[in-house]
Amino acid sequence: MSPNRAVIVDCALYEDGRRRPGELSLDELSSACHAKNAFVWIGLYEPTEEEFDSVRREFELHELAVEDAIKAHQRPKLEVYDDMVFAVYKTARYVEEKETVEFGEVQMFVGSDYIIVVRHGEASALTPARRWLEHRPEVMSYGPAAVGYGIADRIVDDYAPVIQGLDNDIREVELEVFEEHAENPVERIYKLKREVLELHRATAPMVAPLSQVVGGRYRFVPDDLLDRDVQDHLLRVVEQVETFSDLLTSVLAANLTRVSVRQNEDMRKISAWVAIAAVPTLVGGIYGMNFENMPELTTTYGYPIVLGVIAAACLSLYFFFRRIGWL
Amino acid sequence: MSPNRAVIVDCALYEDGRRRPGELSLDELSSACHAKNAFVWIGLYEPTEEEFDSVRREFELHELAVEDAIKAHQRPKLEVYDDMVFAVYKTARYVEEKETVEFGEVQMFVGSDYIIVVRHGEASALTPARRWLEHRPEVMSYGPAAVGYGIADRIVDDYAPVIQGLDNDIREVELEVFEEHAENPVERIYKLKREVLELHRATAPMVAPLSQVVGGRYRFVPDDLLDRDVQDHLLRVVEQVETFSDLLTSVLAANLTRVSVRQNEDMRKISAWVAIAAVPTLVGGIYGMNFENMPELTTTYGYPIVLGVIAAACLSLYFFFRRIGWL
Amino acid sequence: MSPNRAVIVDCALYEDGRRRPGELSLDELSSACHAKNAFVWIGLYEPTEEEFDSVRREFELHELAVEDAIKAHQRPKLEVYDDMVFAVYKTARYVEEKETVEFGEVQMFVGSDYIIVVRHGEASALTPARRWLEHRPEVMSYGPAAVGYGIADRIVDDYAPVIQGLDNDIREVELEVFEEHAENPVERIYKLKREVLELHRATAPMVAPLSQVVGGRYRFVPDDLLDRDVQDHLLRVVEQVETFSDLLTSVLAANLTRVSVRQNEDMRKISAWVAIAAVPTLVGGIYGMNFENMPELTTTYGYPIVLGVIAAACLSLYFFFRRIGWL
Amino acid sequence: MSPNRAVIVDCALYEDGRRRPGELSLDELSSACHAKNAFVWIGLYEPTEEEFDSVRREFELHELAVEDAIKAHQRPKLEVYDDMVFAVYKTARYVEEKETVEFGEVQMFVGSDYIIVVRHGEASALTPARRWLEHRPEVMSYGPAAVGYGIADRIVDDYAPVIQGLDNDIREVELEVFEEHAENPVERIYKLKREVLELHRATAPMVAPLSQVVGGRYRFVPDDLLDRDVQDHLLRVVEQVETFSDLLTSVLAANLTRVSVRQNEDMRKISAWVAIAAVPTLVGGIYGMNFENMPELTTTYGYPIVLGVIAAACLSLYFFFRRIGWL
Amino acid sequence: MSPNRAVIVDCALYEDGRRRPGELSLDELSSACHAKNAFVWIGLYEPTEEEFDSVRREFELHELAVEDAIKAHQRPKLEVYDDMVFAVYKTARYVEEKETVEFGEVQMFVGSDYIIVVRHGEASALTPARRWLEHRPEVMSYGPAAVGYGIADRIVDDYAPVIQGLDNDIREVELEVFEEHAENPVERIYKLKREVLELHRATAPMVAPLSQVVGGRYRFVPDDLLDRDVQDHLLRVVEQVETFSDLLTSVLAANLTRVSVRQNEDMRKISAWVAIAAVPTLVGGIYGMNFENMPELTTTYGYPIVLGVIAAACLSLYFFFRRIGWL
Repeated sequence: MSPNRAVIVDCALYEDGRRRPGELSLDELSSACHAKNAFVWIGLYEPTEEEFDSVRREFELHELAVEDAIKAHQRPKLEVYDDMVFAVYKTARYVEEKETVEFGEVQMFVGSDYIIVVRHGEASALTPARRWLEHRPEVMSYGPAAVGYGIADRIVDDYAPVIQGLDNDIREVELEVFEEHAENPVERIYKLKREVLELHRATAPMVAPLSQVVGGRYRFVPDDLLDRDVQDHLLRVVEQVETFSDLLTSVLAANLTRVSVRQNEDMRKISAWVAIAAVPTLVGGIYGMNFENMPELTTTYGYPIVLGVIAAACLSLYFFFRRIGWL
Repeated sequence: MSPNRAVIVDCALYEDGRRRPGELSLDELSSACHAKNAFVWIGLYEPTEEEFDSVRREFELHELAVEDAIKAHQRPKLEVYDDMVFAVYKTARYVEEKETVEFGEVQMFVGSDYIIVVRHGEASALTPARRWLEHRPEVMSYGPAAVGYGIADRIVDDYAPVIQGLDNDIREVELEVFEEHAENPVERIYKLKREVLELHRATAPMVAPLSQVVGGRYRFVPDDLLDRDVQDHLLRVVEQVETFSDLLTSVLAANLTRVSVRQNEDMRKISAWVAIAAVPTLVGGIYGMNFENMPELTTTYGYPIVLGVIAAACLSLYFFFRRIGWL
Repeated sequence: MSPNRAVIVDCALYEDGRRRPGELSLDELSSACHAKNAFVWIGLYEPTEEEFDSVRREFELHELAVEDAIKAHQRPKLEVYDDMVFAVYKTARYVEEKETVEFGEVQMFVGSDYIIVVRHGEASALTPARRWLEHRPEVMSYGPAAVGYGIADRIVDDYAPVIQGLDNDIREVELEVFEEHAENPVERIYKLKREVLELHRATAPMVAPLSQVVGGRYRFVPDDLLDRDVQDHLLRVVEQVETFSDLLTSVLAANLTRVSVRQNEDMRKISAWVAIAAVPTLVGGIYGMNFENMPELTTTYGYPIVLGVIAAACLSLYFFFRRIGWL
Repeated sequence: MSPNRAVIVDCALYEDGRRRPGELSLDELSSACHAKNAFVWIGLYEPTEEEFDSVRREFELHELAVEDAIKAHQRPKLEVYDDMVFAVYKTARYVEEKETVEFGEVQMFVGSDYIIVVRHGEASALTPARRWLEHRPEVMSYGPAAVGYGIADRIVDDYAPVIQGLDNDIREVELEVFEEHAENPVERIYKLKREVLELHRATAPMVAPLSQVVGGRYRFVPDDLLDRDVQDHLLRVVEQVETFSDLLTSVLAANLTRVSVRQNEDMRKISAWVAIAAVPTLVGGIYGMNFENMPELTTTYGYPIVLGVIAAACLSLYFFFRRIGWL
Repeated sequence: MSPNRAVIVDCALYEDGRRRPGELSLDELSSACHAKNAFVWIGLYEPTEEEFDSVRREFELHELAVEDAIKAHQRPKLEVYDDMVFAVYKTARYVEEKETVEFGEVQMFVGSDYIIVVRHGEASALTPARRWLEHRPEVMSYGPAAVGYGIADRIVDDYAPVIQGLDNDIREVELEVFEEHAENPVERIYKLKREVLELHRATAPMVAPLSQVVGGRYRFVPDDLLDRDVQDHLLRVVEQVETFSDLLTSVLAANLTRVSVRQNEDMRKISAWVAIAAVPTLVGGIYGMNFENMPELTTTYGYPIVLGVIAAACLSLYFFFRRIGWL
């Protein structure tokens, strides 16, 4: 009655911090983990209700936990039950091509001799975290809580490329705003703002539950094995995201100013050309009048002189407008 | 002296968590509920003062509670009296056609052997909640507090479609802002902002009273029967609403920029055509002058040459403006 | 040595919650109130220093209190002295004609057997509160604190029409912003913003002192006589005022967008008419040239054909501009 | 070795709250103040390091205090040392002509039998505070702490004219924004915003240290001698300054809208005149064509009729534009 | 196995607060520092992992600390381990030419008999702090904690020129915004805003860890030796930075208004000239009509009179536009 192998990404028994070789079935695992210094680590990927149910029953998880585990879209949280800690973390991944942030979720059921990790979404594949921990038996020997801590560390570290990606985008957008001939980047600015707000909504609520772990309220792992950087890195992410949000608000305002400045520059340029074109029209209008007695009209050089005057006036205006910066 | 049946939506006696079949009058209910493991659940819909008064007297509710129960428009709150808890929750419903959020209110008088639920407004019909709970006698056996908890759960769950509806509207509005030929959506943005601010005012003050229930200060139901998701879902709603509010502020600013960008584009387009039209006017003005000695005028091909020059100049300008993106 | 009768709005002795008929002088009152279950309620309206001094000396009020009582413009507060509570509340009144909010102040000196109420400004006449309380001897029998509570209730209730008035104004202003042919309401929006900010400054600092009364720190009246709605209503007012403030910021931004949108519409309309007018000018310029050899000029129908061409071009442009929405 | 007399504004010995007549040298003062019920009050104005050093040595002040005392530009604070309280308050003065707020600083070293007050900047001359206190021996008899309290009171009272001045300026600026023919006040608005932000930075950090004094943590003077208004007045100033800041943000936005509205009005006015001027140009263009067969040209009244048509068309346009509000 | 000398900026043994002359190798230092009243101060500059490792092993620092020390970009923090305090501070330097703020980092490992200081980035060279402290043996005799305090003092003092530089820039930018003929400074405003936001992110998180040191939770140095100004100065910096941020937001808004005002001024100027140029064109158009019966055309002085009328009309318009301020 074991669930689909594709859903169970990896599951193994760890004794004294070392992985026991070979594959075990779910019920073998659930009985073996009661041994001293042994625990089970099961990794699931987007299980259905039935798939998760078999795991739940083996480890006698709370029925309500099933509901949580099969649907994503929960708030980051850390709930302490009598014999278990249930944690939900948000994962994030930056998709370069679409310039968007994709969010996922990792849920952990941490008991005294088991840890069941359910992942939703693409972000933060946990296999590297498992490899890293399996090479550190002195950490793994502290059991499921150490694993939980290691996973939290991994998830928060995976925010770094997201921050990096958004930082690059914001710098590009700044260049576009202040460059002379770029497209107006208002849509891109807005979309970045949306991504940043979403990222804030995913990360900021994680500060409180994580500080419970780090601050020692629910600490299971000795201080000297794990540094307190997880909390720190998360705070840096949240502060960075808030700075991004403020920057984008300012960029949006600066961009609007830039549009207005350019509109004014265009208006000046247009007006200058209109003024230059007005000269021949005006002169032509005067000498197009049908008065019988217009002495200039009968002089031999009247026409070339007028043409010369028009050209001179136009050139003067042209250089005048260049000088005052309208052209 | 029983009140209007239309006002009493449903009332029943529950013994050991199971509904006793048949209808009972108000005074039968109020005496029957004193039995061990029995309680009464009365659901009222927008009662008048007299209608509510008969209920109040049967259950010896505090006189001041009547005032509260017959008028809506209170703040969400949870008040603990000696023998009763009085709770007010806000309900919300998304009306697709009008793109508005309608608000209602649910008031609960929770005693040791009765729960009286008064609903105002369309949102969050509670019959489904009753059906759900009646199928879970193991929950119902915990009495009125479990019912209160179930109703709070239902109300908060009913915010989900409101959030979904607003999310859709905001995404539509974003498309309108950045699409080329759409109407300017400033009115729609503003109206969404208004709805979002109203929703924030309805939901944010519910966090504190609900956390009293969930955090255990006034807890009546054991942990393992009810998950702590209500509080979590409410927090998600509030955070989502705050993100909406920020997004709409940014959309409003982006839209203004968009208007300015388009104005500039229009101005450039207009100016380009004005410049093109200026050429024949200018040339016509020159050759409309009445100088006697204008050699071009007497040449055979003067006129077609000038027409050709005008056409060539206009076309050159046209292609020039296309190249610099003004047309 | 009793002060001006116009200043003392009303003063009376209450025994067992009932008003003793007849008028008493200040010193009769101050000695009579020491009787068991008796207290004095004195209402003053904008007293001068001398007028208030006679009251102060009779009841041995703290000298510094005089200063406070004769000038308005204090912050809402609640100060507890050894034998007295001194409270300052802000009153507000909506003046429809001027669309402004007028502020006043009510100061209360609450001792064990007296309450002296000093009112400044038009808002919240307290006679109705006295009438209401005099019909409830069971409340009045709890003495001065009950009176103080009743007055606070009255003051907070009197914010309701202010909120209502501002709400109406904001809705009117919204209509003006989005209506086609209305005057630009920027001045009105700004003035409403000013009123709303002032109202916030008057009401928000009242939350803390009022919660001391309601939350029980200085409670004098039993729970079952007075509901806790005062605090609730005040919080609703403050939250509403904050929503107003946010709405007005958004309305200001939406209005600016509206102005820009309309400017663009005007510019397009103007440009369209300029383009239409340019056609005859342009054609007139061409055929106004004085070339000798312009074959069209000598044809019989040249002129009407050109007129027809001009008319046709103008009409085509007109319908073109209608189609693209510029006219 | 006494410092410059101009630096020591006033210094005196107070016995039982009364000033001992005559002038004493610094070392006489420092020994006399140890007497029972006696204390010294020294007022200094912007002392140099050496000038202050002689005072410091007489009263054995902490060496680090010298640094603080000779330079201004500290944050408001209240530091409690073993035998001394060191307080720094910010003073403010409104300069009408320049429409700016000037800031100063008052530092107080309050021991059990001395108070040394160092003032920097023009604002809040303390001589009136000394006069006021010297007329209240019952307050002065409580020693240096009462003096410190009196000075704090004076400093906070001196904010009132600053608030008044800014309030006037903001009201003037509002009039300028909404008046028809005023200069655009954007520079003035911005400068007021700067002053208001500076004032906020000076006053807001004083709330915490002052509440330590008033709230009793370091209280030296009995309640009944000094009212708690200092704290209250300061809070009113801070709240008023915050309201100013919000108002100026709104005024800036309203002003931008106003500029846009006026630009649109100007554009409409200009366009209307352009349209009116287009009529004769257009008609003149038509009848300036050189077709041989233009029957109107040969009629006797053709010219006056055309002039009449032009005038009629111009007038019609003029009244049309008046009616739609463009002129 | 001693690391590169360029990495170790300075290292010395202090006995009773005085530096022992001569250079010692790392292992001599680590054994000598166990002596009574002796400690080691090692200053490193951007060490690599291997370089730092030799130091770490000599002083038995926690392995996790190595990671932290070799990479910068951590949050300011203060972590208390069993036998060591680990602190991270951010340094800042204003680069005049580029108008940017450069950030660095100082990390301190403070044990009972050693202090290891790792600096990253250009800002806050610590040699002056060492010189200053070496001249104060009475401070140095308190050991590593006093050194740590002195360094924190130095770092915070080094913010002053940054604040000064930004203040100058903001004042320059204000002048540019309100000056008549300056370039639009929108890009500069935005870049300043970015620098200010970055500075806020660097300084604000230092308040909490520094207050732990100053507020006494981890205090090692007696009060009378070190003033509490570090915390104060940091708070002043943070408040100043927040004021800068608000000012720049207002400057951005004022600048946008300024652009709009100037656009309107330009539009008016342009329109005025267009109107003036329209007069001769219009009159020329009228008298260019080819009506046979135009009496003015045949009069002797018709032409000069018309020229005069045109000139008079143009001049009148010119003076009219000057009067209403459009020219």
